[in-house]
Amino acid sequence: MDDPNQSFDPTVLPASDPCPFCTIANTYPTYDPTAPPGPDEPSLDPSKAAPASFVVLSTPTLLAFLDILPLSAGHLLLCPRRHAPKLTDVDAREAAELGRYLRLLSRALVRTTGVSDWNVVQNNGAAAAQVVNHVHYHLIPRPEIRASGKLRESFTMFGRGVRSELDDDEGAALAAKLREAVREVLEEESRKSKL
Amino acid sequence: MDDPNQSFDPTVLPASDPCPFCTIANTYPTYDPTAPPGPDEPSLDPSKAAPASFVVLSTPTLLAFLDILPLSAGHLLLCPRRHAPKLTDVDAREAAELGRYLRLLSRALVRTTGVSDWNVVQNNGAAAAQVVNHVHYHLIPRPEIRASGKLRESFTMFGRGVRSELDDDEGAALAAKLREAVREVLEEESRKSKL
Repeated sequence: MDDPNQSFDPTVLPASDPCPFCTIANTYPTYDPTAPPGPDEPSLDPSKAAPASFVVLSTPTLLAFLDILPLSAGHLLLCPRRHAPKLTDVDAREAAELGRYLRLLSRALVRTTGVSDWNVVQNNGAAAAQVVNHVHYHLIPRPEIRASGKLRESFTMFGRGVRSELDDDEGAALAAKLREAVREVLEEESRKSKL
Repeated sequence: MDDPNQSFDPTVLPASDPCPFCTIANTYPTYDPTAPPGPDEPSLDPSKAAPASFVVLSTPTLLAFLDILPLSAGHLLLCPRRHAPKLTDVDAREAAELGRYLRLLSRALVRTTGVSDWNVVQNNGAAAAQVVNHVHYHLIPRPEIRASGKLRESFTMFGRGVRSELDDDEGAALAAKLREAVREVLEEESRKSKL
């Protein structure tokens, strides 16, 4: 949700009352990530929140959803359900659970997008380009574009790139695929831990 | 250790055999982070590894040290001790421990530098600007420079900024302060959890 074009001018930071990520947390119920809702699940209807939200994970502790101004297809945000402005404001259990799911969501993202390179970014404070005042990690696939000679364009983390709004139908389909990929990854982990 | 100027041209990626972060892991012994070595501890002598390394944390699972080409004072790297190329290659326990220490090191970093804004960045693969092929998180303080009109210069994550080499004496002193701040943070946590 960070708009990097805005982040260069702190005077245009949007008011975040109510916090948009708390709104998403309050709108969408938790579900068991090992048995995720399908694409047409009414409780995850993207139009229930404004702007439309595409939920990829919703546990009692964490929430993940598609960035609505993605830097690339699959650009995800992961945050604690509870409001906390910066990473220093989460508790020890939330911090560990965020770390655990950064790995699991990375696996799901690589599997779903077919893109094997990605960035994990977490910004704290206006000077660090944080726009939404609710701690969140970005997971950003980096498609291989070296061959095209457009390498510079892949480094658009902080506002030099073009971000276009996520299409609602594509967002819903992609979120459902990612929920299913998270389920697969969790199932494989659980099978491995039983060996 | 990522040189962002290099990351724009994958043909100049350095060979990483032996892995420089494994070298650091093999050079410096673990210590109890609640009783860290002081500034003159021989076992943490920065000159024992080449290039000089400034250890901030060294547990059986994790390692943190100063970036030798810092984007700002206090620029830290956190990685698993065991070699793993990408975040998808760490195990579940390492992922959670990385998450836990990202929060603790952030607290120590804010306390030590007095800078309250910072970025956490973790790059996976050449297309995502990863240079050292051993998974690591960057913690990068972002001093407030809005007033100076140099805001653009703060967004130097991927190679547009000037990175100058870390001074050995400053590095050793800063690393010792950070080890002490980690101790303080852990002590406060432990006191809180006993309440």
